[in-house]
Amino acid sequence: MCRWIAYRGETIALEHYVTAPARSLVAQSIHALESTAATHGDGFGLGWYADHPEPGLYREVRPAWSDENLRYLCRHIQSHLFFAHVRSATGTPITRPNCHPFACGNWLFMHNGFIGDWNRIRRRVEGLIPDELYGSRAGTTDSEAVFLAMLGAGLDRDPIGATARTMAAITEMTREEGRADPLRFTAAIANGRDLYAFRYAVNDQANTLYYRASGQDVVCVSEPLDEDRTGWHAVAPDHVVVARAGRRVEVQPFAVANALAAE
Amino acid sequence: MCRWIAYRGETIALEHYVTAPARSLVAQSIHALESTAATHGDGFGLGWYADHPEPGLYREVRPAWSDENLRYLCRHIQSHLFFAHVRSATGTPITRPNCHPFACGNWLFMHNGFIGDWNRIRRRVEGLIPDELYGSRAGTTDSEAVFLAMLGAGLDRDPIGATARTMAAITEMTREEGRADPLRFTAAIANGRDLYAFRYAVNDQANTLYYRASGQDVVCVSEPLDEDRTGWHAVAPDHVVVARAGRRVEVQPFAVANALAAE
Amino acid sequence: MCRWIAYRGETIALEHYVTAPARSLVAQSIHALESTAATHGDGFGLGWYADHPEPGLYREVRPAWSDENLRYLCRHIQSHLFFAHVRSATGTPITRPNCHPFACGNWLFMHNGFIGDWNRIRRRVEGLIPDELYGSRAGTTDSEAVFLAMLGAGLDRDPIGATARTMAAITEMTREEGRADPLRFTAAIANGRDLYAFRYAVNDQANTLYYRASGQDVVCVSEPLDEDRTGWHAVAPDHVVVARAGRRVEVQPFAVANALAAE
Amino acid sequence: MCRWIAYRGETIALEHYVTAPARSLVAQSIHALESTAATHGDGFGLGWYADHPEPGLYREVRPAWSDENLRYLCRHIQSHLFFAHVRSATGTPITRPNCHPFACGNWLFMHNGFIGDWNRIRRRVEGLIPDELYGSRAGTTDSEAVFLAMLGAGLDRDPIGATARTMAAITEMTREEGRADPLRFTAAIANGRDLYAFRYAVNDQANTLYYRASGQDVVCVSEPLDEDRTGWHAVAPDHVVVARAGRRVEVQPFAVANALAAE
Repeated sequence: MCRWIAYRGETIALEHYVTAPARSLVAQSIHALESTAATHGDGFGLGWYADHPEPGLYREVRPAWSDENLRYLCRHIQSHLFFAHVRSATGTPITRPNCHPFACGNWLFMHNGFIGDWNRIRRRVEGLIPDELYGSRAGTTDSEAVFLAMLGAGLDRDPIGATARTMAAITEMTREEGRADPLRFTAAIANGRDLYAFRYAVNDQANTLYYRASGQDVVCVSEPLDEDRTGWHAVAPDHVVVARAGRRVEVQPFAVANALAAE
Repeated sequence: MCRWIAYRGETIALEHYVTAPARSLVAQSIHALESTAATHGDGFGLGWYADHPEPGLYREVRPAWSDENLRYLCRHIQSHLFFAHVRSATGTPITRPNCHPFACGNWLFMHNGFIGDWNRIRRRVEGLIPDELYGSRAGTTDSEAVFLAMLGAGLDRDPIGATARTMAAITEMTREEGRADPLRFTAAIANGRDLYAFRYAVNDQANTLYYRASGQDVVCVSEPLDEDRTGWHAVAPDHVVVARAGRRVEVQPFAVANALAAE
Repeated sequence: MCRWIAYRGETIALEHYVTAPARSLVAQSIHALESTAATHGDGFGLGWYADHPEPGLYREVRPAWSDENLRYLCRHIQSHLFFAHVRSATGTPITRPNCHPFACGNWLFMHNGFIGDWNRIRRRVEGLIPDELYGSRAGTTDSEAVFLAMLGAGLDRDPIGATARTMAAITEMTREEGRADPLRFTAAIANGRDLYAFRYAVNDQANTLYYRASGQDVVCVSEPLDEDRTGWHAVAPDHVVVARAGRRVEVQPFAVANALAAE
Repeated sequence: MCRWIAYRGETIALEHYVTAPARSLVAQSIHALESTAATHGDGFGLGWYADHPEPGLYREVRPAWSDENLRYLCRHIQSHLFFAHVRSATGTPITRPNCHPFACGNWLFMHNGFIGDWNRIRRRVEGLIPDELYGSRAGTTDSEAVFLAMLGAGLDRDPIGATARTMAAITEMTREEGRADPLRFTAAIANGRDLYAFRYAVNDQANTLYYRASGQDVVCVSEPLDEDRTGWHAVAPDHVVVARAGRRVEVQPFAVANALAAE
């Protein structure tokens, strides 16, 4: 299990959410409250949009809590849309290319959860990645493979639909031969303007997802950043938080079942 | 606070104590029971004696729990006298030279605790290091400075006395001008044949120290390595475990006060 | 391009070849003479056999020349069969799982070269890996994929044949559609008793391979370890050095063409 | 020997000098032309000023040439005053706190060279650091000690004078007892507005320093960033490049001898 935050709104320094709050992401890295893992010390990452269509990335294998570089970057980098993630590995090695977020073209992706029985279905999930994107597979995580599969399913023209279709395909894999392998997918994607945060699971409980909005600013999190939970809304399973550029945040059903039926 | 183990006895693979037991040192790195810090993810180290008078060292800034190299080394390296340490930093940077154990000549040293108000007395503790050893100061920890001061105080010819004299000098520093700065020193030294493990504190509680002996084999630890505590002896504050080559383990008073009086 | 050494013979400390000679592997890491890359600072690794059927591994992303751990390990670890490798990356990330040597079961493998147009054939080379070994793919290099494919082709019962069959299959891939993608494979494998070192290339020059033998001791290298080249034998392309347990070293033709014809 | 660049002028992305030019600093890290070391792979660092009086820092022990984070940061961070440095270590460990640049309060500092016989004079150079700054000594390099000594000598109110007085004091140390220990000091300091770049040596050749100016923009470098050296001015030994806010660059004599005489 991992912890993450995603922000879209007025341009601010990353420190406002990553390092400063009482229950900041860095504080969660050494001691999370709502995670099955208390410690998230298996690497971390930042992704942010600034003056280019494609995002910047900073990923490191050391724990977030002791990384001086992270504190400097969060204080000195400002962004209108950024991701931050602290990892608790579920089997794949602790390497930078296995740290979240992942970037490809204009897109950022990060994930909290796991994708079925990964050793069993890994090759088939990788098979969902189109040839032209397979060279972008720099690591070995389930998360990165899902992201590249989502891009192949049409993230650019239909972000929610592409995600639903990919989840539908993998959900089928978890159910075949009478199996019911657990899949947890609490994840965020962004393209520099719009932010989407999903809470989905099959054969298992969905990992938590919260958001807090103020005007057009929105922050989505694994768990609230304050001791006081006022203003934080829990997102129900099978829902997606949609924060499109210039619009207020909405929460919509995330209908993987429909995508399943449509296939 | 840190966690450590020290072993002297029949030649065995390091894995028997570092990675294999239910409450092994690596298990303690992610979740310790008797430490003020639950997580010890700020680097770690191994020191061991094999075919040379001077020890081997492996130190790394990543957490012990996710380091594949550590597992391989603990399985494939055997020794009659070895140290292992997982760190929870108390202010100095996470670098390899700041990880325990420290080696100098034939000696190994590691420490759990802290040395008074380090920023206040650092320069004077460093002043206890003789010129000919100052070039060996590769890091910035209080622990390494104390070790080099102990070497300067005569560790080679009188290990317990040199340690007591060094602790006496630093104890005086913690008490000057009406101060009572806490100092905790639960530490181990070895020279390839003999092992000494100290439990000492001033103006504060002493960090825990346990040992278990079987014939001439002895293992000293911050906290027991088994769920079952049978066979583990708690060492009282102001005592030292002495395991000299070819002799059974003894526990003796560690009389810093006498060293103080003698000055 | 990379640099490597492989040793089989009397049990000795790794330092005799890895760190001590004038042109030791660590010296080659900062300045190689016969490589297209002068610097090999993209990580390194050690693999060695001791008291277990499976080998030990130490791999690290930092350059070999500045790693204190490497010097300690080479001085304190002894082995009758060991590999050491310094990497100059050809496109895949600098991560520990991408460093050589690779271990699987009782086998060790390391490689100097590259495998055709990797982005073009990667998925198909990965397709040569049997399902039961695919979970062992911890990194993303061409080298590791080739190793797992070789295991799938029967390394256990026929090391040279399995290697030839794998090279034949990949050689076909480099030639399809009128292409002539270069492939260089100067590589070593070992199973704890026997050592094999291959020099092969297609559509390109083969990377250098030398060996020096004394009784049953043999060391195979990318380039000689001494300024004086006396005693070092250059291995011709399309040949394999065979050093089976208890037997003198032999050099045999490595007949990939036959494997091609047999398919 | 190290390589570095310092820029002050219009706000630009760091990539313009650190990664983009033909002979960029990252290109120099793998192959420098005017350095006694061809390879500068012992860590690197960035320091830059943005919206705060104090600078941001990113320092890492891996070689600059393979660090993906560095490429992202240089593309996405913009600054009107920044430093970048690639290290070839001269004896002190490869740790982040030993990487340049160093930051303290509003000041940045970086250095190419070495400070006499460091093991002989280290304790006395550290003695030049005032007590209130000694807690800022996070590493063990000669360079950081000199920087903190310069701060103690009055960098805030008289940057050139404080640097000259510190160099004078250390120059005396290199000359005592009939010695003539070499000292090389090609270094840069900045406070967020003004930039100073020094070229000084005693008992040895001074390391190279060049600058290129265009209006109020100036970049100071160890060696030119282009194959074409047009526009690059070599700075003579015992001179300092002065680039004060809102003023054109000037080159002035750097009169350590006067500071010596004045003592």
